Amino acid sequence: MTQNIYDDQAFFEGYAQLNRSVNGLDGAPEWPALNAMLPDVQGANVVDLGCGYGWFCRNVREQGAAKVLGLDVSEKMLSKARSMTSDPAIEYRREDLEQLRLPAGAYSLAYSSLTLHYIQALPELFATVFQSLLPGGHFVFSAEHPIFTTPSNPGWIIDKEGNKTWPVNGYQQEGKRITHWFAEGVIKQHRKLATYINLLIAAGFVINHLDEWGPSAEQLAAMPALSEETERPMMFLLSAQKPL
Amino acid sequence: MTQNIYDDQAFFEGYAQLNRSVNGLDGAPEWPALNAMLPDVQGANVVDLGCGYGWFCRNVREQGAAKVLGLDVSEKMLSKARSMTSDPAIEYRREDLEQLRLPAGAYSLAYSSLTLHYIQALPELFATVFQSLLPGGHFVFSAEHPIFTTPSNPGWIIDKEGNKTWPVNGYQQEGKRITHWFAEGVIKQHRKLATYINLLIAAGFVINHLDEWGPSAEQLAAMPALSEETERPMMFLLSAQKPL
Repeated sequence: MTQNIYDDQAFFEGYAQLNRSVNGLDGAPEWPALNAMLPDVQGANVVDLGCGYGWFCRNVREQGAAKVLGLDVSEKMLSKARSMTSDPAIEYRREDLEQLRLPAGAYSLAYSSLTLHYIQALPELFATVFQSLLPGGHFVFSAEHPIFTTPSNPGWIIDKEGNKTWPVNGYQQEGKRITHWFAEGVIKQHRKLATYINLLIAAGFVINHLDEWGPSAEQLAAMPALSEETERPMMFLLSAQKPL
Repeated sequence: MTQNIYDDQAFFEGYAQLNRSVNGLDGAPEWPALNAMLPDVQGANVVDLGCGYGWFCRNVREQGAAKVLGLDVSEKMLSKARSMTSDPAIEYRREDLEQLRLPAGAYSLAYSSLTLHYIQALPELFATVFQSLLPGGHFVFSAEHPIFTTPSNPGWIIDKEGNKTWPVNGYQQEGKRITHWFAEGVIKQHRKLATYINLLIAAGFVINHLDEWGPSAEQLAAMPALSEETERPMMFLLSAQKPL
C-alpha cells in the first residue's frame, strides 16, 4: 500500500492551509492549463484517482458529467469530500491505487491530480486505467515533474543577487525519494518523464499533449511569488487517449 | 540560417578530437540505445539531418538501405564525409535545415543526431520531415536535453565530497543559449521536452518512444567517466512515426 501520509494529522493540518485546499481548483495555478486539456464531459462517466477534497469531482458534475467516482486512500480527505456534497451522482470510495481494479470500458475520462508520483505500481495502474476507458476515452493527469522530484537535497540555491537555481542530481536513479513536506518522511517515487510516457504507450495509450507547467505572464503579474516556477517545472500535465 | 559553428576552424579542430568523431557511432555512448529505436532499413530510402562525418549514412547502407541522403550545413563536415566513401548510393548535400525542402513521401526513415537543438524553425522542419515520409515512416532523433541546455551557467557544482549537481534555472524561458564549446559563442536553442513532443504531434506524428538517455551499468563499468551522465540527462532520444 502507498504510504498514507494524508491521514497523518500534522500533514493533514498543513495541507489544509494550502491555497489549493482552501480555494480548490481556483487556488491551483496549473488548473487553467489542465482544464484546457480536458475533453467535453457532458454525459460522461468520470473517475478521479486521488480525489482529495473532491474539488474536481464536483467541478465535472457542474460541467455535465453523468456520474463521477472519486477515489482516495485517505479517510480524512474522503470524509472532507463527502461533507462538501450531497450529489447522489458523485461517489467517493476508499481505494489503494497500488491495487486498484476498475470495470472494463466504464469511463470516458480518467483524471488524476498530483497523485501518481506516490505510486509504485504505475505500470499496473496504467493498464487498469486503459482497460477501464471506453475507446476514444481520455486520461488526463498532473504529477510532480522529475526535475522537482530528483534532487537528493531539494531546495533552491540562492546567490548573492537572489537568483535561484534548482539542484538536479541522480536523475537516472528512479525510485524512492524521502522529503519533508508538512511531515517528516514523505515518500515519493521519482520517475523520468520518459518512463511515464513509455509506460503509457506500453499500456496502449496515444500521447496527445504534454505540458511542463509554468505560470503565464498574467499569473506572474498577479502572483509574483510564482516566479520561481519559471526556473524549473514543479509538475507536468499530460493528456493521453485510448485509440478508437 | 543557423549559425555554422562547425565551419569555425577552432571548433572543427576541437570537435575532430571527440571520441564520437574519431570512432564514429561506436564512440557515441548513446548509439546502442538510438540504434535499438531504428526500424529495419533494408531497401529503405533514408535522410540524415545534420550528417556530420557521415557515420550514420554509411552504417545504414551497410544495414541494407537503398539510398541515403546526408544533409549538413558545414562544408568541412561534408568534405570529410565525402572523403570517407565512394558509395554512389550515398549523397551528401549542403543544406540549411532552417529552410529545408524535401520531396513528398520519399523516405522511410528520417534521422538526426544532436542537431535539432541548433534549429530555430523547428515547427517548419518537423512539417517538412512529416510530408517527406512515407505513411508508416519513422523519424528517430537525438537532441540535447533541456535540462542540459537551460542553465545560464552550465557547469557542475561540486561539493567537498565530489558530488556533482547540475544547476537548472530559466527552464520556462525557451530560446537562445550561448555557450562555449571548442569556440566562443556557440548558439543553441533551449526548448522544453514538452515543446518537442507537442510540435511533433502538431505536425501529425505519433510518439513511439522517448529515452532521456543515461549510461548502462556495463557502460559505467567500462567508462567510469560516464558516471556524471547519471546525474542529469545530457540528451534525449525520440522515436516518432507518421501514421499509416
